[in-house]
Amino acid sequence: MARADYPQPIQELIAELKRLPGVGPRSAERMAVWMIQHKKRNPLELAQALSQAEASVTLCPACGFFATADGCTICDDHSRDEKLVCVVEQATDVLPLERSGAFSGYYHCLGGKLSPLDNVTPYDLRINQLLKRLETLEEVEVILALSSDVEGEATANYLAEVLAEKKCAVTRIAQGLPAGGGLEHADELTLMRALQGRR
Amino acid sequence: MARADYPQPIQELIAELKRLPGVGPRSAERMAVWMIQHKKRNPLELAQALSQAEASVTLCPACGFFATADGCTICDDHSRDEKLVCVVEQATDVLPLERSGAFSGYYHCLGGKLSPLDNVTPYDLRINQLLKRLETLEEVEVILALSSDVEGEATANYLAEVLAEKKCAVTRIAQGLPAGGGLEHADELTLMRALQGRR
Repeated sequence: MARADYPQPIQELIAELKRLPGVGPRSAERMAVWMIQHKKRNPLELAQALSQAEASVTLCPACGFFATADGCTICDDHSRDEKLVCVVEQATDVLPLERSGAFSGYYHCLGGKLSPLDNVTPYDLRINQLLKRLETLEEVEVILALSSDVEGEATANYLAEVLAEKKCAVTRIAQGLPAGGGLEHADELTLMRALQGRR
Repeated sequence: MARADYPQPIQELIAELKRLPGVGPRSAERMAVWMIQHKKRNPLELAQALSQAEASVTLCPACGFFATADGCTICDDHSRDEKLVCVVEQATDVLPLERSGAFSGYYHCLGGKLSPLDNVTPYDLRINQLLKRLETLEEVEVILALSSDVEGEATANYLAEVLAEKKCAVTRIAQGLPAGGGLEHADELTLMRALQGRR
């Protein structure tokens, strides 16, 4: 007697789902079975949405954010403040900033951060594109909104050095206590930076 | 200035992913962005696997487990013990039993459990199919492997009553301490049942 398992098509679906980030074998199984059992709720729409997103989404050649054939919603929005360019690591870092409502300028996504261990050099990031973009702008403030880990710091320092030769102001977003966080939960480095950045 | 958001195709993909069980807004966003950014790893294979599973997987008319056009791997396996029929709630309950390796007979999936609050009556479950199936078999042991919550108990009691008129032995799987569990972590009901079921 052979032990029974899911039919081949379900097993293939589980294998595909398991590759998604944050999805383990058990969640993949649950999702696959849900998709098969809820035929009324049209799981095929997921397949269609995926194919369509796959086919139509590209990265904006100017800022590096997600764009479609219709263009980039950010670069095409001429009501934004053209004196502000915020440099972020990934295209996904744009939306948290947008949702905060605290920034009204344009963005530039580097596509990563400097990391010698992973063989990421300045040539792998969209730094040249940033420099070219700045040549066409005047009196611009470049805000570095990079993560506060070692690689993010290294990238910010490198950019500050490169941009020092350009006619633009360079600032970095502040580091300190997160909103709602008490002193007792903050680590020493965060506290040190919060103290250094006091105003 | 309008706040930027993901392009429409990505938003639709996120909406579809959010409908999956166990996937919240943030995981859906992460998955969608992963799918778009890892084009090399062929996320389209997921869409294909989904369409194929959707099209080819049905439920076995005899036992209610997942089947394809090639048939049901369990019902078609004639090396199994035909004197044993294990009654489970859902098709998904079959695989844990199969993986335990402790059962070598056939299965019957009810498709749910009795639940007056959710309007699930005996006519909504595959009980008639079970009775018909048992008419063609002789000296069969029917093992009720239902969950140990209120609805599972009610379903088991109902089935025991209905099957009492048939020429078959009816047993239930044991309830007691889970493997590896200490007494200190067991609730009172589990302990009571473990004591009642001592052997």
